[in-house]
Amino acid sequence: MTTAHHEDRLHAQIAFILEIDKLKRVLRRNLLMDGSRRENDAEHSWYLAMLALVLAEHAEPGVDLGRVVRMLLVHDIVEIDAGDTFIYDVVAVEAQAAAEIAAAERLFGLLPEEQAREFRALWEEFEARETPEARFAKALDRLAPMMANHHNEGGTWALYRVTARQVLEKVALITDGSPRLGAFATDLVETSVARGHLQP
Amino acid sequence: MTTAHHEDRLHAQIAFILEIDKLKRVLRRNLLMDGSRRENDAEHSWYLAMLALVLAEHAEPGVDLGRVVRMLLVHDIVEIDAGDTFIYDVVAVEAQAAAEIAAAERLFGLLPEEQAREFRALWEEFEARETPEARFAKALDRLAPMMANHHNEGGTWALYRVTARQVLEKVALITDGSPRLGAFATDLVETSVARGHLQP
Repeated sequence: MTTAHHEDRLHAQIAFILEIDKLKRVLRRNLLMDGSRRENDAEHSWYLAMLALVLAEHAEPGVDLGRVVRMLLVHDIVEIDAGDTFIYDVVAVEAQAAAEIAAAERLFGLLPEEQAREFRALWEEFEARETPEARFAKALDRLAPMMANHHNEGGTWALYRVTARQVLEKVALITDGSPRLGAFATDLVETSVARGHLQP
Repeated sequence: MTTAHHEDRLHAQIAFILEIDKLKRVLRRNLLMDGSRRENDAEHSWYLAMLALVLAEHAEPGVDLGRVVRMLLVHDIVEIDAGDTFIYDVVAVEAQAAAEIAAAERLFGLLPEEQAREFRALWEEFEARETPEARFAKALDRLAPMMANHHNEGGTWALYRVTARQVLEKVALITDGSPRLGAFATDLVETSVARGHLQP
């Protein structure tokens, strides 16, 4: 490989790095655990990667933890162009798919070709939820905002009038990635209902 | 292992997870790339983990990338208790060491014992900068704020009257982890001086 080739690669990589800084300005609906403000996608992605390291033993045996972490680090990057969608807003969730595919094309397309393919594959694997790694990653992505709502007297559940029944549909995705974490999430939901922070 | 044992572990892990949410509220000196606000430690940690994935080929051959990523994810957690220290504030940097050791003890100590040891070892490895993984991780930690300052007309360099000579001492740490990224950082410094955004 020539020096010029390496320079071109670094140039493309830096363009991508500068672009993804914008993930720090994409706001999610849920609040921080202390309720002080809404969470952004970049800090959310760090948090999920940490959850993966800390909770690894609750994943299916043999899960490739490094892959789970890489998937979580890139899983929201498409939202730089496509924006965040509230998971309980069914209409928006459907319209979102096309916007996210275009976003993946543009954003990962800034990288050298084989890296673009690799990052896009991680994002697609996460979305498809077919591998144990993706199921565990998705479980963590569902668990974190439930913990935040549980700590914020209902948080976005209360604000958007979400019911326990709707939340339990999301808990099923957690159970699918980790039965133990699914049981933990069910407890959070039941406690929130008992406290009057979530409609039955 | 009994179910009660697993419950205890999960309980400790959740306590740690709730506590580290606070990293999202620890502010650093440097701004986001667009200059809109100061960066927090959690989104900074995500950003560095992404830099590790994107720039991996510029590390020493054979570097364990998964370890670099894990190190970057945990490297600032001690700042929840000890706060962020501006790297050009020499007096504060010295006082910081003891506070960070106490913070590591308390924060990682929330985890089950062998996880506490594992996370603390990652943080200590990062700080010691003796392994190729730690040198690469530290290089990225130094590179990111230089990119932000370069994009913000000098940013914290201008604000705190830092000189190119002081910045080049930090560039040496980048070169130590990756000669190619060191050369890239040197270019950033020279461009900033040429533009009048950094004192020679």
